[in-house]
Amino acid sequence: MTLYTDDKNKKWFRESNAELWPGQEFSIEIEEILYQQRSKYQDILVFKSKSYGNVLVLDNCIQCTERDEFAYQEMAAFLPLLVHPNPKRVLIIGGGDGGVAREVIKHPQVEEVILCEIDQDVIDVSKKFLPDMAKGFASSKVTVIVNDGFEYLKQHTNEFDVIITDSSDPDGPAEALFEESFYSLMKAALKQPYGVICCQGECIWLDLPLIKKLMTISRHLFPSVGYANVSTPTYPCGALGFIVCSLNENATVTEPIDIKLADELDTKYYTSNIHRASFALPAFVRKTAEIFDVKEHLEAGEPCKFALYTGRPMSSHAADLRVTLKANDLNTKQQWVIRIRELIQENDLYHDLTMHETNTKQPPSSSSAAIQNKISNLSNINPSDRRSQEIADNASDEYEHISRGGSLSSMTTGSFSSTGQHHQIQQVRKKELI
Amino acid sequence: MTLYTDDKNKKWFRESNAELWPGQEFSIEIEEILYQQRSKYQDILVFKSKSYGNVLVLDNCIQCTERDEFAYQEMAAFLPLLVHPNPKRVLIIGGGDGGVAREVIKHPQVEEVILCEIDQDVIDVSKKFLPDMAKGFASSKVTVIVNDGFEYLKQHTNEFDVIITDSSDPDGPAEALFEESFYSLMKAALKQPYGVICCQGECIWLDLPLIKKLMTISRHLFPSVGYANVSTPTYPCGALGFIVCSLNENATVTEPIDIKLADELDTKYYTSNIHRASFALPAFVRKTAEIFDVKEHLEAGEPCKFALYTGRPMSSHAADLRVTLKANDLNTKQQWVIRIRELIQENDLYHDLTMHETNTKQPPSSSSAAIQNKISNLSNINPSDRRSQEIADNASDEYEHISRGGSLSSMTTGSFSSTGQHHQIQQVRKKELI
Repeated sequence: MTLYTDDKNKKWFRESNAELWPGQEFSIEIEEILYQQRSKYQDILVFKSKSYGNVLVLDNCIQCTERDEFAYQEMAAFLPLLVHPNPKRVLIIGGGDGGVAREVIKHPQVEEVILCEIDQDVIDVSKKFLPDMAKGFASSKVTVIVNDGFEYLKQHTNEFDVIITDSSDPDGPAEALFEESFYSLMKAALKQPYGVICCQGECIWLDLPLIKKLMTISRHLFPSVGYANVSTPTYPCGALGFIVCSLNENATVTEPIDIKLADELDTKYYTSNIHRASFALPAFVRKTAEIFDVKEHLEAGEPCKFALYTGRPMSSHAADLRVTLKANDLNTKQQWVIRIRELIQENDLYHDLTMHETNTKQPPSSSSAAIQNKISNLSNINPSDRRSQEIADNASDEYEHISRGGSLSSMTTGSFSSTGQHHQIQQVRKKELI
Repeated sequence: MTLYTDDKNKKWFRESNAELWPGQEFSIEIEEILYQQRSKYQDILVFKSKSYGNVLVLDNCIQCTERDEFAYQEMAAFLPLLVHPNPKRVLIIGGGDGGVAREVIKHPQVEEVILCEIDQDVIDVSKKFLPDMAKGFASSKVTVIVNDGFEYLKQHTNEFDVIITDSSDPDGPAEALFEESFYSLMKAALKQPYGVICCQGECIWLDLPLIKKLMTISRHLFPSVGYANVSTPTYPCGALGFIVCSLNENATVTEPIDIKLADELDTKYYTSNIHRASFALPAFVRKTAEIFDVKEHLEAGEPCKFALYTGRPMSSHAADLRVTLKANDLNTKQQWVIRIRELIQENDLYHDLTMHETNTKQPPSSSSAAIQNKISNLSNINPSDRRSQEIADNASDEYEHISRGGSLSSMTTGSFSSTGQHHQIQQVRKKELI
């Protein structure tokens, strides 16, 4: 039961979910229930709270409160908008409360916003009970379409500069929005070459496996990817993230493209500093992902590809160097992973290893000498270190493929489709400029 | 009642506090109560939870859970340690669970840690039920003193490189730790010239007035001050901050002094990126503080001083330019505030205005011509803008004192002691490097 009365006769909404956040609950005191009804898709509850203004709840999950909604809405809108050089046409999937639309139209370059919400009732109750959010609908720039976002995307390709997915958690009507097929449709609906997506990315404290899955999907499809964490008091654990991806391999999603504009926006949460800072993730997010995937991969004993990202911000995922290992021996590969990491650390390079299972049969695209040369260039940054050179020499014997630059997606498509499996490793890069 | 059984016969601890966080509650499911007793100072509860490991609760407030405690402990320890060039001797006030001590001794330069905890029972239950935190006590570098931190500090001056206040909320035994007298004692207990303090700074979503008070006190006493926000799922609103202050006016508290060391520490939360990013605060934190204080000051109709911080990161609080207004007319001052802000914005300078009530009677320390010159230098950055020059011309008539460089504390001591009141304004600076 999510509504209860305590021993002081106070009424509370209790947000409980034994699957998504077992063993913890967040409660908000109710002053008055304003709306409570089942729509075609979900249970909708709106109440006036004692200290958080009006609160919208869908399927027993808090969607927004008037007191803190701005953090989520502003970040959902401005993280992608400030990564695009000229975001004229924006698609919002979900966002039926109007809050993200309200923020998007603050951006001076935005000319048209399509908002595709599946549930008309959410729009209606928001207009009635969340007027400060629903005012986003009042703009002549905003067109509302009541439809399934998945179905809408199937019919629209090459149309949008920015796509924002403002969805609920992946266990109701929004479930399909956390799958690779949905991300592929978003990619196809973007205009080349600068299209940007921003997707609700759940919580680093609760959903690390899902986040890893979504990040792997994103890196498969987009050359520039990042995960941004936002302080959101009334979401579980007080944190919610966004996955931001750009079609442009030279995009730096962690950095606003126009700092002056970013800091002149009428915001309560977003600033250019917050934009940068939100992409700095706690060590456990990086380390957990890394350890899990390396182990999983090595135990599988499969040949694999590595992509090294050196000298660039970590969240910008255009690789400087890619290699594919052909060795099948677990020890050899394990040693190789350790070695390439040592090499990177010794040379104090930014780095991010991406590793994919593969059954690639193609001939090497670069000669052995070219590989040797490229690895030597890496190790030569610190030429006095003999061990680096040895590592490079030994390591080069084990490759069958190496390439520099280019996008992750173009390189890995073959291996993905042949096995349907993929793994990724990340490491915190040194001296990241956030 | 903080312990209750729900309709599915699950037992919960419910964190409720109508004063500190009215209208909201966070609950953790209990597997087994391990300890429940009143000490000399407070109610102590330890329980084994379903999903957060063992949980320590003091006076009905969650202090730590085994699942997420690392975020708080690491940041309390490494934010100040990585701002000090050689932190050999560290004082922890509070911290009776041992978690902060566990982190502090990871720093290779730390030789001695004094931990001053008021409540022996907290130490005892932590050793029994939170062994992974209490292992901090096992190090030969750590000396435990059971005493009131306030009393301990009175007897120790010029002794510590770093002082960390790891306290509970300001409504129990820790109340005195949120007062100016306590900050003054900490300052006196620090070694010159690099001493650093790090104090528990409550929550940006709940405690903005208290944070403003503590930041004002800090800026009064220390030349370099910053507020860092940390993601902490089991504290109210999922966020808790730290106030970090250095005696060294050239210190940049937002930046680790040794990035390599910062990233090599065995941590689960702290990284050099997280260090920087934690000081980026949401717009509402800055803007609310500004609006509140300007209004409060102007309504008081008192003469005031301004300190301008231009061209440097905002969190580094050595001023470039300071002025004192003598005009008593509310309108004149209001206009002056608006004008100086326009001047700064037009010239796209970093800025931070600090304003203090004062009854200063001293003669001007700089001639009118020198003042005129300094203001002209500012406005001349944009010489084509006639309005800037006019502002400078008019404004210069209103000063009685101006200085460049030096520390805030040295300038404002007199005015603080004469009125006991102080006000501060902050603005988000442009192009901040976090």
